[in-house]
Amino acid sequence: MNKVRIGIAGYGNLGRGVELAVAQNDDMELVGVFTRRDPASVKTAAGAKVYSMDDAASMADDIDVMIICGGSATDLPKQTPELAKIFNVIDSFDTHARIPEHFANVDKAAKESGHLAFISLGWDPGLFSLNRLYAESILPNGKTYTFWGKGVSQGHSDAIRRVEGVKRGIQYTVPIESAMEAVRSGSQPDLTTRQKHLRECWVVAEEGADLAKIEESIKNMKNYFDEYDTTVNFISEEEFDAVHNKMPHGGFVMRSGMTGDGEKTHQMIEYSLKLESNPEFTASVLICYARALARLKAEGATGCKTAFDIAPAYLSPLSAEELRSKML
Amino acid sequence: MNKVRIGIAGYGNLGRGVELAVAQNDDMELVGVFTRRDPASVKTAAGAKVYSMDDAASMADDIDVMIICGGSATDLPKQTPELAKIFNVIDSFDTHARIPEHFANVDKAAKESGHLAFISLGWDPGLFSLNRLYAESILPNGKTYTFWGKGVSQGHSDAIRRVEGVKRGIQYTVPIESAMEAVRSGSQPDLTTRQKHLRECWVVAEEGADLAKIEESIKNMKNYFDEYDTTVNFISEEEFDAVHNKMPHGGFVMRSGMTGDGEKTHQMIEYSLKLESNPEFTASVLICYARALARLKAEGATGCKTAFDIAPAYLSPLSAEELRSKML
Repeated sequence: MNKVRIGIAGYGNLGRGVELAVAQNDDMELVGVFTRRDPASVKTAAGAKVYSMDDAASMADDIDVMIICGGSATDLPKQTPELAKIFNVIDSFDTHARIPEHFANVDKAAKESGHLAFISLGWDPGLFSLNRLYAESILPNGKTYTFWGKGVSQGHSDAIRRVEGVKRGIQYTVPIESAMEAVRSGSQPDLTTRQKHLRECWVVAEEGADLAKIEESIKNMKNYFDEYDTTVNFISEEEFDAVHNKMPHGGFVMRSGMTGDGEKTHQMIEYSLKLESNPEFTASVLICYARALARLKAEGATGCKTAFDIAPAYLSPLSAEELRSKML
Repeated sequence: MNKVRIGIAGYGNLGRGVELAVAQNDDMELVGVFTRRDPASVKTAAGAKVYSMDDAASMADDIDVMIICGGSATDLPKQTPELAKIFNVIDSFDTHARIPEHFANVDKAAKESGHLAFISLGWDPGLFSLNRLYAESILPNGKTYTFWGKGVSQGHSDAIRRVEGVKRGIQYTVPIESAMEAVRSGSQPDLTTRQKHLRECWVVAEEGADLAKIEESIKNMKNYFDEYDTTVNFISEEEFDAVHNKMPHGGFVMRSGMTGDGEKTHQMIEYSLKLESNPEFTASVLICYARALARLKAEGATGCKTAFDIAPAYLSPLSAEELRSKML
């Protein structure tokens, strides 16, 4: 079987992760990275070739799957439908509330041009969504909980950095252990936002900045911190660079359900991720779905799909026989 | 949409669980239980009608999915291919080593008669298999671990009860916490059978039995206990009946993998179940796959499939639009 030829659109942390993930899969090969920047200015981690995004269309025949590594706020709503006119595409669009609209736009573009598109892949949305679906289908009488962390929230870190007097800043979302234990007990608690997660901030202040004011500004910030218990820790730039230079993340999907006579039997399903690198893991998910995309496309599929629509066997390099004998 | 009409072949703990699980799903209805015993002797938990297995074939038009609730050792290898000639069927065949052979037999019977069959569903094989497949596809460089328990092993409990002088007996498989912590640390340890699980036995001895001899017989039993650290606890029949009257089980599937530049970034995926009733939970899995079967059959699918072949969306009563907006 021919290798799946991958293109990467956009080269930040996620694009870099995809480049490295391709190298871990013998049945994939990387054609190149496509950037809106000057290609000469982009240095890739493993020596991938860099092209201008303007040249992508001319290479359509060389690429089986274009993995779009832009941001969900402004890049993907525009890029994914545009690129789906030219390529089979995969993205990690993660603005949950806007998924139906994004799906419709991508589905239209892909169907009209005869391409196949997978959206909203990664771990949430993605693997966490799959676990919510499996668990809720199996245990219809129950309650689902999602906890995130401990991990870096890019959006909240950005928000900290916009506060006056902040030179460097990072925010960790921390799931509250006692809340998770309450869920595991089967009591199906109603948990407020504040009861589920803490927000832990690490800040390097500008020289002479008013630390008390920075702390208050962060803690009271609407939509970001005001509904949470938040800690703000001031540290030196040296410590910041030494300790807070990674992008760990993770979380938990839990389903507490009841079965049996009188629905009195407690059944607990729990899925968790502990990731040293959020973008590298997300990239690994995207790449294994690229394998599924190539196979489904070969069967004639077009339009937009999500993780829900893809039978698990398509993700593995093993044959159906091998899967049944080794993994079932 | 019409309700999915369910038949249950065989009425033990699993059949009883299926009967109760049907009642939790509005889109399902139970036609009846089919037994090889005298139907008049079978009392069902929720009042399901009981028929002789000999009458099943005459009711083929009334049943969309027959869920076969026999044992894997002798019942299912015979029953599933036989019944697949007459019905669409689902079983929980769990003898991992014989799955390829069972698959071939069922696939042939189902294809020849135009039926659809799902085999080896439940949690292991089933949900644990799915998690092994997803995790290994995402993290190709890594190591997968499966731990079982704490829970009752039927096979090991039966083995205890065959020991001379044992009146009642039950065996719990217990995963060793320090081994699981070693896996979670990312060290990818090589673990022996003894390092992964303990075997905890609770025994009611016959009056006047030689307790030391019972204990030695259990601990040294080949294939069952000799490769494990085993504890044997003697208790009264009253305590046995009060404490050891449930069938809890569960376990963990863990994938420890490495990504990124030089494959130095540790990524951990963990899936776990904590079940108060193993048969009720297995039944819940079978029933949600019955929904998927009815849908795939309506699309024209025939032959044998496993959890690997079934796109997750088929399991949920929600529409594709609802799934995308509520669960993705």
